[in-house]
Amino acid sequence: MEFKSIGTIKSSFSEPAVPEEMRKENSVILVNEEFEDGLYKIEESTHLQVLFYFDKSKGYELIAERRVGGLKGVFASRTPGRPNPIGVTVVELIEKRGRELEVKGLDAIDNTPVIDIKPYVPVFDESS
Amino acid sequence: MEFKSIGTIKSSFSEPAVPEEMRKENSVILVNEEFEDGLYKIEESTHLQVLFYFDKSKGYELIAERRVGGLKGVFASRTPGRPNPIGVTVVELIEKRGRELEVKGLDAIDNTPVIDIKPYVPVFDESS
Repeated sequence: MEFKSIGTIKSSFSEPAVPEEMRKENSVILVNEEFEDGLYKIEESTHLQVLFYFDKSKGYELIAERRVGGLKGVFASRTPGRPNPIGVTVVELIEKRGRELEVKGLDAIDNTPVIDIKPYVPVFDESS
Repeated sequence: MEFKSIGTIKSSFSEPAVPEEMRKENSVILVNEEFEDGLYKIEESTHLQVLFYFDKSKGYELIAERRVGGLKGVFASRTPGRPNPIGVTVVELIEKRGRELEVKGLDAIDNTPVIDIKPYVPVFDESS
């Protein structure tokens, strides 16, 4: 399966940090010009789900000591080191300016490629 | 970016149906043998986030009439017809049997390739 970048994250974090700290800051998703029309009416959503590519991730371990909860399988963990290194995070949409989305809550470093943006829909995205 | 299938969905739906109907049924995620160890301790999570590939999706429209909410951009919609056709759904983990996960709430048809499985973590995945 071949996927392409649809945009890029602009963040004040140029190196990985603790996700909890990264999510306190605002960042910007700059959508590529060719996809700008795909943002039509996105401001109707207060929250978005962002899929991004952990492009700095090098390989993965099927079972390893994780940052949270000790020894776990890769699919029982949110580690960036995954067979398919895709991150999924829900963010608050602060402002849309043309093809820039200012968001709060994104835990991705500067220049991370974006794979997809979806409106956050509780019925799909929440456990209850 | 090149991604690979890590497993396959076994569902009683062989054709696309209304997602709300599909999510009422149980389905099975069969993880490929080479990735089985990655499931270690996954049963500690009651809910999982599943990323899958809309392999039946053919192309996309940047702006179109959507199933819900009228005319919208592709990133303001959950349509399967996306620049990168990846679905994200939260499911309940019913039972783990070897490399099979029986889950409830998955809105994907039979034989859909799975890209990733992550534990559902409210702090990352909920809007509040």
